[in-house]
Amino acid sequence: MLPRAIMEQAQAELLDWHGTGISIMEMSHRSREFQSIVDQSNADLRALLDISADYEILFLQGGATSQFSMVPLNLAGPNGHACYLHTGHWSGLALEDARRHCAVRVAASSEATRFASIPPRADWQVAADAAYFYYTANETIGGVEFHFVPEVSGPPLVSDMTSNFLSRPVDVSRFGIIFAGAQKNFGPAGLVVVIMRRDLLGRCGSSVPRLYDYATYAAHKSLYNTPATFSWYLAGLAFAWIRGQGGVAAMEVNAMRRSACLYDAIDASGFYSNPVPAEFRSRMNVPFILADPALDQAFLAAAHDAGLEALAGHRSVGGMRASLYNGMPDAGVATLIDFMQEFARRHG
Amino acid sequence: MLPRAIMEQAQAELLDWHGTGISIMEMSHRSREFQSIVDQSNADLRALLDISADYEILFLQGGATSQFSMVPLNLAGPNGHACYLHTGHWSGLALEDARRHCAVRVAASSEATRFASIPPRADWQVAADAAYFYYTANETIGGVEFHFVPEVSGPPLVSDMTSNFLSRPVDVSRFGIIFAGAQKNFGPAGLVVVIMRRDLLGRCGSSVPRLYDYATYAAHKSLYNTPATFSWYLAGLAFAWIRGQGGVAAMEVNAMRRSACLYDAIDASGFYSNPVPAEFRSRMNVPFILADPALDQAFLAAAHDAGLEALAGHRSVGGMRASLYNGMPDAGVATLIDFMQEFARRHG
Repeated sequence: MLPRAIMEQAQAELLDWHGTGISIMEMSHRSREFQSIVDQSNADLRALLDISADYEILFLQGGATSQFSMVPLNLAGPNGHACYLHTGHWSGLALEDARRHCAVRVAASSEATRFASIPPRADWQVAADAAYFYYTANETIGGVEFHFVPEVSGPPLVSDMTSNFLSRPVDVSRFGIIFAGAQKNFGPAGLVVVIMRRDLLGRCGSSVPRLYDYATYAAHKSLYNTPATFSWYLAGLAFAWIRGQGGVAAMEVNAMRRSACLYDAIDASGFYSNPVPAEFRSRMNVPFILADPALDQAFLAAAHDAGLEALAGHRSVGGMRASLYNGMPDAGVATLIDFMQEFARRHG
Repeated sequence: MLPRAIMEQAQAELLDWHGTGISIMEMSHRSREFQSIVDQSNADLRALLDISADYEILFLQGGATSQFSMVPLNLAGPNGHACYLHTGHWSGLALEDARRHCAVRVAASSEATRFASIPPRADWQVAADAAYFYYTANETIGGVEFHFVPEVSGPPLVSDMTSNFLSRPVDVSRFGIIFAGAQKNFGPAGLVVVIMRRDLLGRCGSSVPRLYDYATYAAHKSLYNTPATFSWYLAGLAFAWIRGQGGVAAMEVNAMRRSACLYDAIDASGFYSNPVPAEFRSRMNVPFILADPALDQAFLAAAHDAGLEALAGHRSVGGMRASLYNGMPDAGVATLIDFMQEFARRHG
């Protein structure tokens, strides 16, 4: 969900960007006009996360899933090995893909808790000589979020922040690579942003596809081949919008307030429940189950009638899930809570 | 350049697609609504090119450049070899990327003509046991287009049709793989369509990135990971628009008429010239030079003042280039010709 203001601006400018008479979609990625979008979006993102000159910002196609292969191909290679923290669906897919490209060691897994927690730090097996240490900052399906940056001495930290990017401050200097698909918090599907420590560039083997080598993008300012220009433009609008709202600190305040309201309503209901301990609960994705799963279909049907969509849990786990990305207004959360309370009254 | 009608429809629907109250950009790729876009776009493209059930249609991210690696990784592999016809910039990039993944033999090259022609068929060296035979159906920089399908017995034909896709009928059954980036004739940057004979699936090695294996897309109807949903939607609008205009046969009539007008004006001018023999001239990209290159900057400046943009030739060759993709109206060509004649009168 994108903020309404961004969608309206995109609509207004769709046929004529800034008086040029042409659409972003028709603009050459080598034009002066598009370069201004590139420059501004880079500057805004760098300001938002206070990213130092030691880091490259790359804009890639392929979505976050492409990073499941690019990270091991660039940092480990066939003779290297990497450590993965397995905390749910997305870290699981990432480590499976990594196994195609390097040796993978699972530092710890929360599978025994059905991915409703983060394994205690003391239980992690971290190999000091690993090419990198990988974790998923927010698991959308389990609703588990890291509210801390893991301490691992040795290997560079790599994090998939797709689903909580720009929803909170992050100390980029702690990471080797941060990546995030655009479609959750800052744009439409089809774009992924990679923030990468420069000294990790250039480790990629020559048999890796050229577009899977981060150095290709770094050397050409992400314009080696035609980028997803319209998606990049929308991401730029989102970065500017977040800055205008007060930056990631303001996004964090919003996310804490909205998610606390919803978790409080769930916990107080005696009808809905969420299995995640408070310290690991995601501010972005709030999964919950009904006291009686036989009511699931009635809940979804009534929600649909009330104009509330996309509440079904992931097909792998069932139940319900509310997502509270940056674009979600407070009123949307309030409407959801009112609906849930009314449904519980009628069916509890 | 996209047809105005498509842009206006996209603008009108941007905040509320078909009364759903939500934007395509906010829609889950697993929703019923998006599935209807997927189904219709597939059906329309299949109808437009009369694609048989022996062929998969795949929608991928990454642009046409991704195919420079995907084709050799899927069809040849490190122990295979492939034949390439080198007719310009794009086939040159494709064969360079293929060299990272397999042995490459250049069947023939038109470099001696500065890529202003297609080498005579009799001069091609085609290895019958090659994994595939590759050519670029239209070279945008040289302005050279294949007006025939190469006869090569043995290896499957692979063609990059990015810059003339859907501008003419094509007998898909002659090909192993046809691919086309969307941004020239049917959509915005960030999407590539692959039309692939099903029996060529499943030849990919297990160390290839999962998103570079065509089988990943074929097995999941191009929905393995989140696709570029908005780009796909726009491509669907373009397919429907082309059908409404009379299909690819009508596009071909348009392309022949528009390009003939421009080539005739160039040939008759005594001031502008195009080096490509008539039989190889592209209907999509018309490069031309001025009698006196010292006038180039004056030409571009005057064109800009007349509202004519994007006429500078590729930075590697200089001169001028007019592109006449499906979205170009006849009036645009007439305006260009009028401008060129007036400029020649004043400076000739």
